[in-house]
Amino acid sequence: MLDFKNGKINLSHGSGGRNMAKLIDELFLKSFDNELLNQRNDQALFTATSGKMVMSTDGHVVSPIFFPGGDIGSLSVHGTVNDVAVAGAKPLYLSAGFIIEEGYPLADLKKIVESMAAASRKAGVPIVTGDTKIVEKGKGDGVFITTTGIGVLLRDDLQISGNNAKVGDKILINGFIGDHGISILSKRENLGFESTIKSDSAALHKLIEKMVEAVPEINVMRDPTRGGVAATLNEICQLSNVGAILEEANLPIRIEVLAACELLGLDPLHSANEGKVITICPAEKAEILLTAMRSHPLGKDAKIIGEIIEDDDNHVQIRTEYGGTRLLPWPAEEQLPRIC
Amino acid sequence: MLDFKNGKINLSHGSGGRNMAKLIDELFLKSFDNELLNQRNDQALFTATSGKMVMSTDGHVVSPIFFPGGDIGSLSVHGTVNDVAVAGAKPLYLSAGFIIEEGYPLADLKKIVESMAAASRKAGVPIVTGDTKIVEKGKGDGVFITTTGIGVLLRDDLQISGNNAKVGDKILINGFIGDHGISILSKRENLGFESTIKSDSAALHKLIEKMVEAVPEINVMRDPTRGGVAATLNEICQLSNVGAILEEANLPIRIEVLAACELLGLDPLHSANEGKVITICPAEKAEILLTAMRSHPLGKDAKIIGEIIEDDDNHVQIRTEYGGTRLLPWPAEEQLPRIC
Repeated sequence: MLDFKNGKINLSHGSGGRNMAKLIDELFLKSFDNELLNQRNDQALFTATSGKMVMSTDGHVVSPIFFPGGDIGSLSVHGTVNDVAVAGAKPLYLSAGFIIEEGYPLADLKKIVESMAAASRKAGVPIVTGDTKIVEKGKGDGVFITTTGIGVLLRDDLQISGNNAKVGDKILINGFIGDHGISILSKRENLGFESTIKSDSAALHKLIEKMVEAVPEINVMRDPTRGGVAATLNEICQLSNVGAILEEANLPIRIEVLAACELLGLDPLHSANEGKVITICPAEKAEILLTAMRSHPLGKDAKIIGEIIEDDDNHVQIRTEYGGTRLLPWPAEEQLPRIC
Repeated sequence: MLDFKNGKINLSHGSGGRNMAKLIDELFLKSFDNELLNQRNDQALFTATSGKMVMSTDGHVVSPIFFPGGDIGSLSVHGTVNDVAVAGAKPLYLSAGFIIEEGYPLADLKKIVESMAAASRKAGVPIVTGDTKIVEKGKGDGVFITTTGIGVLLRDDLQISGNNAKVGDKILINGFIGDHGISILSKRENLGFESTIKSDSAALHKLIEKMVEAVPEINVMRDPTRGGVAATLNEICQLSNVGAILEEANLPIRIEVLAACELLGLDPLHSANEGKVITICPAEKAEILLTAMRSHPLGKDAKIIGEIIEDDDNHVQIRTEYGGTRLLPWPAEEQLPRIC
């Protein structure tokens, strides 16, 4: 039996030998327990669904590994579930690739894996195959997790894509902006906001199912993770060759997040989110969509925050509460490394 | 434009901002160029196939990153293509998650990505979605790549699984044993075998297609990577609750690999392979399978190397050229880190 109290990861846990088999048996198979993983082959085998499929991958290198509102394990499930879901898809299966640094405590690894397993069970999306590599001390940083998800489109007629925003469309978000990034920074820099600002890390696929059911005409959905709402909207505007204007008065931002951002010299719109979806839909459907969003716990603070306009420069602007406008640029470079 | 001659990766290349967008545009999209990736969403969308599907993932942390016969880029394509193929499946799509250390030369990253792109094109399996994370200097080691593959079973009636070896079955391999592991070690330890021992890194799916066509009754296929032929056969014997006996005289091992192994105190059967498949099939089909294997360039040195026997202890044994037998144990622990 592995010593999950005082044991540490060593290179043998990635060697292909008996210790690796033990780690897989006693930790991964036990925690992720599902029929497909229990096939114990190097791949999972399942029956194909009909329709259109979606595949997405995300590496997770968040530091610190444990943060207010989650950890790298739950984050790695939510992040990939959301990347699949924002295509308008139902996530079906996940894979998980671990890169672990020699010397990492088995107790912490167990906490991560169990958190991952819990997130996967709660989401109803099993981790069906995986891989573990160990790198020497000083050649990694605790644990990195790359998760890949596949899913099936909720309806074959969806036209949800980053390049599909149309002039006149409304822009919605399902709740408060910037929580994840600020919770990570606050913990990392010991700012002391941990008690009040928690990561919004959550799996959005069930909310998204409701949204697509109510308004299949959604044009764009994206989760504003790294680079925040600013990066996501700038990218959408560029891909769709449009502009966007946000109403500052309608942006749902917690007072604590605003306070922390002031202290850090950050714009909350540049701060990462891990349980948010930016949605763009035809204006005449916006209220229906808003109602659908608000009927789900993860959308109860949803707002219409702006609209798509014509703009050859593809700028994102904000109409301030005083009636002026300012540009919302791409995030400055080099800020917020390892936020997810 | 990024400076691919003298530039280095910095944290901004993973920030979600404009520099990250540039890296994706000028390197990844350009090299991997395919319709699905060019959708430029955080996920790829494709039409589902009917039948049974397969999903597999593998992290790649090989050191050195460039080695005789390949690099981490081509390896990360071959490794995952093979993991999908050994289920008896045709690989369809790959995803790639990069974790890059700050300060890594853009020129080297470009070489890796181009090698990956070339391997993917040659295999006919496109990289349809991806992700890039940057970690601070000293928190990673150059480049790690996690690839995930999905595929569709070549025939719905295949029963290929690690727990399906049957007493009396023959064990085959498609060529020389141990080349990859020894090429890595030789380069890492400066042993000077680089000119003669190259990695066998190759995509096996086309060979496997021929094999399955000739003998759909194959019971087990596995690629003997980490831990080599020894770990793979020990695992199969355990999963299938059988034993195995190999004929030493029939094991295809290069003289140079034997010489290097002697120098390193290693068993070539513990050395990793990246272009080999251990195949187990009913005895009466073994010659047909051998002929099919030899008809493909990647199987021209194929051999029947042993058979499955009854053994409650699930041992793997070797019948030596002098008529005795010895046990082939699981690989010793802590040997050969970061071989793939």
